[in-house]
Amino acid sequence: MYNCFSNNNIINNISIEDRGLQYGDGLFETIAIRKGKLRLWEYHLSRLKKGCKILSLKIPSDDFLKKSIINTYHDSELNHSPAIAKIIITAGKGKRGYGRKKNTISSELFSIFPATQVDPINYKNGVELTLCKTRLAVNSITAGLKTLNRLEQVLAKIELEGTHFFEGLTMDPENNIICGTMSNIFFIKENKIYTPCLKKCGVRGVMRRHLLFCLNKLDFLVRIQPIKAGDMQYFDEAFIVNSQFGLLPVKKCDDIKWSTFKRTRKIMSLMASNNIIECSI
Amino acid sequence: MYNCFSNNNIINNISIEDRGLQYGDGLFETIAIRKGKLRLWEYHLSRLKKGCKILSLKIPSDDFLKKSIINTYHDSELNHSPAIAKIIITAGKGKRGYGRKKNTISSELFSIFPATQVDPINYKNGVELTLCKTRLAVNSITAGLKTLNRLEQVLAKIELEGTHFFEGLTMDPENNIICGTMSNIFFIKENKIYTPCLKKCGVRGVMRRHLLFCLNKLDFLVRIQPIKAGDMQYFDEAFIVNSQFGLLPVKKCDDIKWSTFKRTRKIMSLMASNNIIECSI
Repeated sequence: MYNCFSNNNIINNISIEDRGLQYGDGLFETIAIRKGKLRLWEYHLSRLKKGCKILSLKIPSDDFLKKSIINTYHDSELNHSPAIAKIIITAGKGKRGYGRKKNTISSELFSIFPATQVDPINYKNGVELTLCKTRLAVNSITAGLKTLNRLEQVLAKIELEGTHFFEGLTMDPENNIICGTMSNIFFIKENKIYTPCLKKCGVRGVMRRHLLFCLNKLDFLVRIQPIKAGDMQYFDEAFIVNSQFGLLPVKKCDDIKWSTFKRTRKIMSLMASNNIIECSI
Repeated sequence: MYNCFSNNNIINNISIEDRGLQYGDGLFETIAIRKGKLRLWEYHLSRLKKGCKILSLKIPSDDFLKKSIINTYHDSELNHSPAIAKIIITAGKGKRGYGRKKNTISSELFSIFPATQVDPINYKNGVELTLCKTRLAVNSITAGLKTLNRLEQVLAKIELEGTHFFEGLTMDPENNIICGTMSNIFFIKENKIYTPCLKKCGVRGVMRRHLLFCLNKLDFLVRIQPIKAGDMQYFDEAFIVNSQFGLLPVKKCDDIKWSTFKRTRKIMSLMASNNIIECSI
């Protein structure tokens, strides 16, 4: 980690009494900084604000959050390089016990990391996935959000430890595919694009939102619906998206292989030509 | 909070990079210290170790954990007073990203708090509960455990803010009562005692375990089964238990009233006469 700011001070530690540690009482966002711009900032901010409403947290102004990220980035060694800005929002210090006031004023931590390096061959040849044994609990009040309660993702990711898989897909208990540990998944069949419904669990990724917007604008037929793991084999193509690597074709998920990326490549170039929502810094 | 120890040092802060903060990657226990003894220590330890197995965390020896609590207590201002010892176990400092090694060596935090004060009238007249709107997600891999992912309990407890309710009951999405935000619930009907099944969500409290053991030993008929919120009205008596306050009769849950605590009192005296598993310190 390069640099962490809170209340305009460089910090390395937080209080043990912070509710972020005690209960995971908070949210986070990881924003890609590319060519001096905050990629999909408006979408990150929108998810964060939705999360704060559900968690009954009062956050500073949009402008303060943006400026804090920018200052943290500029003060870091990574200034002028591709980077990741991570905002952690917590309910701050509290007494023992789950309870706290409604609309608690949040504490914020801003930190900068080097951009994730993805081997360029993965964009060309596609990546390999596996179905994780770890299932996502359903009907979570925080479905779709990026809260600090991320044990399911941690446990799913631990399954990949020591394997060659790029990403793990997680299912709900009914064998519906939901999302990757760090990405959202899309499938293509003929002229339609399918992606799992995320009403009951999973994370609504900002790149997923951006892609859905692009596809919609270009009259692609998109179906957001439950997708069973057993149905994956019937799709022609598959790809994953996230805020850091963008879009990656999928060549395999366990025994299922996809050998063509024809339409996936079309979507990749469509996304490249379509102006991504950025925020100058 | 009085005193917090980690690695034999008094500390007030932890690293921002600790996975406990970043992802709620850890567990905790709150142990009652009464008359110089750790109440139900073996049950706390057993749940903690089960949790560490599921979270793939390697913790220090039982002896080290116990000694650390004892030292933290003895060094605190609360020495010789009733107190609460809180152990937080996390996966320690990590890089960005959900992944980590299997069997990660844990970090431990030991802290001491004053014992919770419960108005003695509550033991006599019973407490008042309410059904929370916040539902518990089902089929969680961490059902039964006390992980650092506690947003559901936080949100349920926030609902009680500014009300006179002593505790909130949480349900799963199918209207099954699961447990309180900080307690387990029992109901009595004729000669049977009922308590919700906790296979899919909820916390398996140590006092619940202790009570089930006592009841079993004395040939009470116990039914661990799904209990619908709508069925509460058919029970004769209700009570809640947790590791700090022990057992409290329930006089009301929203519109449902229970006016007799006859058998609940019998169970209270049974528990008082039955040696609670303690650990001398």
